[in-house]
Amino acid sequence: MTILRKASIESKKFYKVAILGASGAVGVELLKILEERNFPISDIRLLSSARSAGKKILWKDSELIIQEVNKQSFSNIDFVFASAGGSISKKWLPFIQAENAILIDNSSAFRLRNDVPLIVPEVNSEMVHSHNGVIANPNCTTILLTLILAPLNSISRIKRVIVSTYQSASGAGQLAMEELKFLTKKYIEGEPQRSKILPFSLAFNLFLHNSPMLENNYCEEEMKMINETRKILNNPNLMLSATCVRVPVLRSHSESVNIEFNDHISVKQAIDKLKKSEGIELIQDFQANRFPMPDDVTEKDNIAVGRVRQDLSNPNALELWLCGDQIRKGAALNAVQIAELLL
Amino acid sequence: MTILRKASIESKKFYKVAILGASGAVGVELLKILEERNFPISDIRLLSSARSAGKKILWKDSELIIQEVNKQSFSNIDFVFASAGGSISKKWLPFIQAENAILIDNSSAFRLRNDVPLIVPEVNSEMVHSHNGVIANPNCTTILLTLILAPLNSISRIKRVIVSTYQSASGAGQLAMEELKFLTKKYIEGEPQRSKILPFSLAFNLFLHNSPMLENNYCEEEMKMINETRKILNNPNLMLSATCVRVPVLRSHSESVNIEFNDHISVKQAIDKLKKSEGIELIQDFQANRFPMPDDVTEKDNIAVGRVRQDLSNPNALELWLCGDQIRKGAALNAVQIAELLL
Repeated sequence: MTILRKASIESKKFYKVAILGASGAVGVELLKILEERNFPISDIRLLSSARSAGKKILWKDSELIIQEVNKQSFSNIDFVFASAGGSISKKWLPFIQAENAILIDNSSAFRLRNDVPLIVPEVNSEMVHSHNGVIANPNCTTILLTLILAPLNSISRIKRVIVSTYQSASGAGQLAMEELKFLTKKYIEGEPQRSKILPFSLAFNLFLHNSPMLENNYCEEEMKMINETRKILNNPNLMLSATCVRVPVLRSHSESVNIEFNDHISVKQAIDKLKKSEGIELIQDFQANRFPMPDDVTEKDNIAVGRVRQDLSNPNALELWLCGDQIRKGAALNAVQIAELLL
Repeated sequence: MTILRKASIESKKFYKVAILGASGAVGVELLKILEERNFPISDIRLLSSARSAGKKILWKDSELIIQEVNKQSFSNIDFVFASAGGSISKKWLPFIQAENAILIDNSSAFRLRNDVPLIVPEVNSEMVHSHNGVIANPNCTTILLTLILAPLNSISRIKRVIVSTYQSASGAGQLAMEELKFLTKKYIEGEPQRSKILPFSLAFNLFLHNSPMLENNYCEEEMKMINETRKILNNPNLMLSATCVRVPVLRSHSESVNIEFNDHISVKQAIDKLKKSEGIELIQDFQANRFPMPDDVTEKDNIAVGRVRQDLSNPNALELWLCGDQIRKGAALNAVQIAELLL
């Protein structure tokens, strides 16, 4: 790919925005968040494949019609939010760049490229300006994890992380969420369940993340967490191991995280730091046995963390639990925050 | 508690059996397994609290009536399977012992007592005979975990285990399973969900295990895994940390397990060992991306293990994934297997 040097976007009062993948779960959420946060927009174009073209969407009291993406779709556009998969982002990038638009890409296509900043605004916003027209939005599980790791890493350098995820259906898209509800209803009614979107029925069931398996017997989703976390925390030697699991939850992810530091840090130090960190809400009431749940964070901007405790098996390790909305902070909100950094 | 020395049960052709907590999920499964395995029974007594007394249960073509437990309930009984909670087991133990019956107890009341063997038959059957009338059935998550750890520990001593669980509703009893289905139906119908059995709705939601919190900020369920695993593996120095999570699955538990050994052991060594181990089925097809799921093991005797892989963050550690039926191997089957060891 040939990319143009473009250090910063021209300062304007209003911007022209395109959403590529406008009919998907993240696309719909992007529209919602752009409205909520009053992103300064003079023109918005909703783009999709032929399949979803023609759909009407109400936005800010006006009716928008989703158009099939074509070579002219990006003319005069300033920002493209893409959330239609890596191959679509790759296909349309030359046309986006020809218009000097900035691509904020939710796919994994460019995330590990040296010339592409991979941004979680609360963590590494300073990297956002060294782009060449493409800024990558990290994987949902990575965004949630780094929001917690970054502040703790500033107390004592993190040496090793072991994480097990509890990922909602939304990570596989709107249709996967609908399938979960549909097959669960079938289950309750005593009818057979056959999945079409996900490889197996998630109805009262769960399975290891079904992204392609790699030679090391980790799946792509797990390697995304490992490689992207290293890049975002600017720590290529960070030891990290992940087990990614799809669970029958609709749209918020959870993670069980074990963090080993170079030195001992106390639970109090960790909590004090997390309390002061942006994007994080602390939910932990040990007396009431109340800690974060997916239901707490669904449609919320902040992720929730709790059950911060001393790992009984290692004096230099802490354990904690986090939940975050996969569609919002795990995708759409983070993308809009990236664009805001550029205004 | 005063207990009687009783090294082994008198050898008989048939035994008299009582089930304390006969109306619960584990009680019902116990009856099923005693029938399936042709446990030599001449008399069976179903016992419960006043609430469930009078209920009729069909067993081996005859109708049994659940009786309210009383001081005479254990007369002439050889084996009592108790699954009605720790306080019930404690309350009735003197009456059980007065009859020289053996209590196989599914509660946590006696598990850590020095004079009570804590048995997973495939792991430490040799301990079963050194009892004083009480043999404890371990916690469900512990049974599943030790089935995997014990064979691996025989290759190289295990140093540290980090486990995150995905525990089904059945661990909280039959009513919790019914509540999960009921509240999920409400959710799908767009109605409000209010939980009565579990502290929060599990409908498309999950939460950290709600057993009482201890001073170290671990919950009782997590400490059971830690302490019971140490006892069963006869390794009081084993470093172990657990995060226990309740997920919207009906009756099978899953566990994401990271195991650090004293020495490096290869994935092949581990798999070869697990393949030869009792009570375990290996489900792993990396090409087909097919690994254990709760649906695979529900109502099965064997637990399933898979995704055995080299931990990328530690050369001496492996990661793996397991699923097992909580009611069956996690409770009822294991209890019947303990009784079989005594015949």
